[in-house]
This record gives sequence, C-alpha cells and structure tokens, in this order.
Amino acid sequence: MKKVTIDTSSKAYEVFIEAGVRHSIGKQLETVLTQAPSSIFIMTDSQVAPLYLDDVVASFEEKLPVYKAVIESGEASKSFAVYEQMLTKALEYGLDRKSVVVALGGGVVGDLAGFVAATYMRGIRFVQVPTTLLAHDSSVGGKVAINHPLGKNMVGSFHQPEAVFYDTETLYSLSEREWRSGFAEVMKHGFIRDPEFLEWLQREVKTFDQIPVERLNSLLERSIAVKAQIVSEDEREAGVRAHLNLGHTLGHALETELGYGVMTHGEAVVIGIVFALKLSEELFDIKLNIDHYEKWFNSLGYQTKLPANVTTSKLVSTMTKDKKVEAGAIRMVLLSELGQATTKEVSADLLEKMLDERMEVATNG
Amino acid sequence: MKKVTIDTSSKAYEVFIEAGVRHSIGKQLETVLTQAPSSIFIMTDSQVAPLYLDDVVASFEEKLPVYKAVIESGEASKSFAVYEQMLTKALEYGLDRKSVVVALGGGVVGDLAGFVAATYMRGIRFVQVPTTLLAHDSSVGGKVAINHPLGKNMVGSFHQPEAVFYDTETLYSLSEREWRSGFAEVMKHGFIRDPEFLEWLQREVKTFDQIPVERLNSLLERSIAVKAQIVSEDEREAGVRAHLNLGHTLGHALETELGYGVMTHGEAVVIGIVFALKLSEELFDIKLNIDHYEKWFNSLGYQTKLPANVTTSKLVSTMTKDKKVEAGAIRMVLLSELGQATTKEVSADLLEKMLDERMEVATNG
Repeated sequence: MKKVTIDTSSKAYEVFIEAGVRHSIGKQLETVLTQAPSSIFIMTDSQVAPLYLDDVVASFEEKLPVYKAVIESGEASKSFAVYEQMLTKALEYGLDRKSVVVALGGGVVGDLAGFVAATYMRGIRFVQVPTTLLAHDSSVGGKVAINHPLGKNMVGSFHQPEAVFYDTETLYSLSEREWRSGFAEVMKHGFIRDPEFLEWLQREVKTFDQIPVERLNSLLERSIAVKAQIVSEDEREAGVRAHLNLGHTLGHALETELGYGVMTHGEAVVIGIVFALKLSEELFDIKLNIDHYEKWFNSLGYQTKLPANVTTSKLVSTMTKDKKVEAGAIRMVLLSELGQATTKEVSADLLEKMLDERMEVATNG
Repeated sequence: MKKVTIDTSSKAYEVFIEAGVRHSIGKQLETVLTQAPSSIFIMTDSQVAPLYLDDVVASFEEKLPVYKAVIESGEASKSFAVYEQMLTKALEYGLDRKSVVVALGGGVVGDLAGFVAATYMRGIRFVQVPTTLLAHDSSVGGKVAINHPLGKNMVGSFHQPEAVFYDTETLYSLSEREWRSGFAEVMKHGFIRDPEFLEWLQREVKTFDQIPVERLNSLLERSIAVKAQIVSEDEREAGVRAHLNLGHTLGHALETELGYGVMTHGEAVVIGIVFALKLSEELFDIKLNIDHYEKWFNSLGYQTKLPANVTTSKLVSTMTKDKKVEAGAIRMVLLSELGQATTKEVSADLLEKMLDERMEVATNG
C-alpha cells in the first residue's frame, strides 16, 4: 500500500492509497486511532451510496454502531440547510465526543462532513474516504467548508482528518467530465512545485481512458506529495499554502458567475491556470510555453477560452469578493518560472484589461 | 489596570479588567494586535447597543471601517438562523481575513460572534468585550457555539480571542437576576479550585447591591484566574477543563427542560451545584457542609430546590444527551473535598434515585 504522510503543525496523519482499501477501513482504523470510536457516522451522497456504502459499512465490526446519512449529490448540498440537517442527525443518533465521522465521496461530501465533524460538540474526529479524483486535493490538508450564496467555501474551518483512505478502484466509475475536474488539480501541483511531475503527466496521461491502476496510484502519490509538502510548511494559509490557489481566483469567479455546477471546478480552474500563465508572462517578462500547455489541455477535453455569457467586468468584481482578497487588492498566484509559484497583488483594473486583451472568448456559450 | 494572562496551547492573550475600558478599546487593540485590522465588525444585542455601542465605536480611529450588527437580546439568538444572518452581513460588509470581530455583550453575543469569527473564511480574529458577570466565564477560554433545538452549545468550536476587555462599569447596569446568573460561575470557581476565594466571597458578597468597584475588580480577577489556570492546563477539555462543568450537567438539563430563559443559566447551575455536593457526600463519604452553602445561596436569592414541573426521569434522560456523555455513561463533576474537583461516571439509575431521594422539590412551580 502506498502512503503519503501529512505532517501539519496541529496533526500528522497518513494518506493510504490502494485499490480496494474501502473493504478494510474498519480494520485499518483500529491501528490509526489511538482512542477507539464509540460509534461511526458515515456521510455519503446519492451517487456514491449505491456503489460503495455497503462495502464501507461491512468493513466495521458488527458490535460498533454505524450510522449513515445520504445527501443529494452535487455542490448544492454544501448549504446551511444540509449542514444543519447533518448535525440534527448526529444528535438524533446520539453521537458523542468519541464518535468518528467518515466522509465517503467527493469534495462536497468531504467538505460538508468535515465541517460537521469540526463543529459537532466543538469538534470530533473524522476520516476522509475520497471517491473522486478531485477529492485527492480537497481531502488532504484539513480545509472544510460549506458555501454561502455570496461565495464558495466562505464558512468553514481547519480540521485535519485522522487519516485519508484512497481507494483507486472507485475512480474507474467516474465520468470523463469528473476526471477532467480532478485532473486540473493534479496538473496544478506540477505547475506550482514539480515540473518533472508535469513532464511525467504529459507523457503518461494523454487520455483519461483506461489509466492502469499502478500508474494511477503513482499519479495520486506524486500529486498528494506536493500538497503534503505545502500543507506541512503552512497549515493555515499564512504563506505558501496560497500557492495551491493557482487558477482558483478566476476559477471560483467563473463558477460563481455561471452558477455552481455549470462548469466543473477543474474546468474552471484550467481557464484560471491559463490566465495565470498569461499574467505571469506579462508581469515577470518570462516565457512559459503557454501554447503548448493549452494544446495539451484541449486534447484532454478542457476549454481554455472564457465563456461568452460572462462579462470580464463581472468576473473581476466577483474576484474582489474572494477570501484571498485583503482590503481590496487582489492577490493572484502566478509563476515566476515553471514549478515556482509566487503571489502578487494585481489591481482590478489591470486584471480586467488583461482578461480583455489576453483571453480568448468562446464563440458558443 | 488589572490583567490576567490566559496561556493556552494554541494562543496566549490577556484579560484586561478596568472600569471604563470600553472607551479605549480601539487604542488598546493597536498594541494587542500584531497585524493591524482591515476593518472591525462589532456584534452586540438590543439590550447592550443603546448603552455602550457608541462608546466602543468611538474608540476606533475614524479611518478604520467599523461595521455593526445588533441581534435580539436573549438565548434564542444563538440559533442557526441568526448565525447565518451574521455571516451574510460579514460578507456584505466585505470583511476579509484581516478583519476583527468585536463581541460586545453577554455570553450569547460572545458565543455567537465567536463562532462567526471562528468559521468566517475558516477563522478570523476576534475580541471579547463582556458586559455581564456571567460572561466573565464564557468570554475566557475560547469556547464558542450556537444552540441546537436538541441541545445547548452543541455546534461550535474552540477559537481563542485576541484579548478580553472587561469594563466593570458595565456590570452596574445589570439586574439582580443577571448578577445571580453570573455569580454562580464565580462561586463555582471557588468550589472546584480555590476554597480561600470561596471564603472571601462569603465574607465580601452578602448582597449584589452596590459592590464597590475595587472589590468587583478583585472578584473578577480571582475568578478569572481560576479559569485561566484550568484552561492553560487543558485547552480542549481532554481532562481538567471538565471540572468547570460542576453543576452544569443538571443545570443544562434544567434549562433545556424548562425552555431556555425560564431559569437563568446561573440559577440552574446553582441547583446543579447543590446536587453535585450531595452526590459527592454520598459517593465519597465526606461532609461538605451543604446546609451552610444552601443558606448562603438562598440569602443571595437562589432557589436550591428542583422546580415542581419537571420530572426527575425527564431530567436524567436529558442529561444523557449532554456533550459530556460518552457511550451512555454520565460523567459527573464532583468534589472529593472542598476545592478539589474530580469526575466520576454515574449510572442514569443512580442519578435518578439520588435526585428523588436527596433533592427537595419546590412547592410552587
């Protein structure tokens, strides 16, 4: 089994990567947890439940109480209403401070279940069991949150899981669109920290169809290793952790403006990465071979142009509402060279100008 | 100015105790905060706003943006709905990660504003400006929360303030009922850790009328010092912090069963303390001179009998839903001797028996 250690200032834990690991989570937890759980509360969604919920439930000893909650699949479940519902269930099931929450699913389930665990009785333990590629990013590092109508992930906390169990088998049931959504974060890790990994990706991933399981395990291990490094250096985003937001300021604005779910997170982030590369070339007077990357993105099915139905001025105004914005200045993550992320404050005016001048607009929606 | 240092594993900060300190909070904050605030968000309630809000606003430099929100006074405001409203306001005002929340008011405002600060953009800074005696307890130690219909303080986190500013002048506008509510926690600190302080209280506080300001400052300093000690030893309630719950398991159950606000928190806690003393005598075969304390409680206006309209079986069933309950056993805080708190698991059956046999019931409501 592959393992990556996440060593933050508040807690150290392992990411276990293995095909089929969902069948042994109960057993694995016995060695991971220093204090035995009094009960288990598995949160999952309507898409994942029919596929894997029974397997995970069956992995626990019969004498341990295991409770379940299934939320609607989709970003809309990261709401105040569903958050409150889950807390109500936790209370009704009688979860106590020794109970453990299991987040079985993608980023939505992980973020929501993590925030429930972070705030139930002022914080109980939880483990992440990601079932999407995108969640390889969100399940590691302890960021948990729900959305507010005025902005994504605006309400949340830092709450590190006790462990992450990554069952690579589950990734083969994902649609191509879901692969694209997650793979954006994989590429991002290459761009900000590991050019060699970025090379490897271009060589090994020319299509999302039928990636052999060994290659997939390696991909996850290397991508998570970048995240682990950064989170270990800066748990609470006081510094380098911000680098993980490459492509995300514009990406979030696109998601907000189009309405959550119209474009996947990764699809929006890739457009954000293209913009960040262009802005980096402009501001640091460097060449990043953007055409080459755009072609690779397009060959994997990513759009790299701005959607026609969103104005640049609206995008910039939404970007100023992002969490990363302090006192009006927009701090963008850029590259000073390939594999070297840095942040720089950019005025709203310059952002709008650059969006207008450097980004192409899709001809059709 | 009197100062008590709270030195937790996650943060160290000062409690400043002084008559009139509300007029200089803006100035004091300049030395307290290592990073200047980008804006200020003062949350207060409908009872406190007309008395002190202007003073606190005026204490900040004019160039700093200061936003305000006034919630309805009372425990009902510690709800999901008001929590969400406050987050919406924070977003609408454009608070960023360098903004600072000011909780101006009693425990309700402190708990709510603290939880807003703990979860807004995954946590921003806040300061406590308690205006009640009860809040001398809740404003120190970083416990923040809202209520759930199924239980008090069930949703929250640990989020330490940057500082606590205690303006003793504000306590003179409190009603006798509010004094009683807060003074229960003062006495509790004596019972669990400081018998000499308990002696001092019995000598110096025979009525809540006209306590001289110097005596009041000393009372707060000594009471907060006990809390500071305990919180420093155990920030996240893994051990001795539980001692602060003396009288609270039964107290919370009384509040829940009667409906929040019927009996004040302190009034309920005093009945809980009486029960804890009786249980301690029974289980540890000691004498705690309970009659003497009951007389003192009564002379200060506290009820020490159970209300007639609540059955003991209902109380015990609510006690088993308390946060401190793990896997069904009820862990009670007891005294092994005066000033020496300890915890002990007590079965629901024994609790009900002891409630029936040892507690008197009020004849009238």
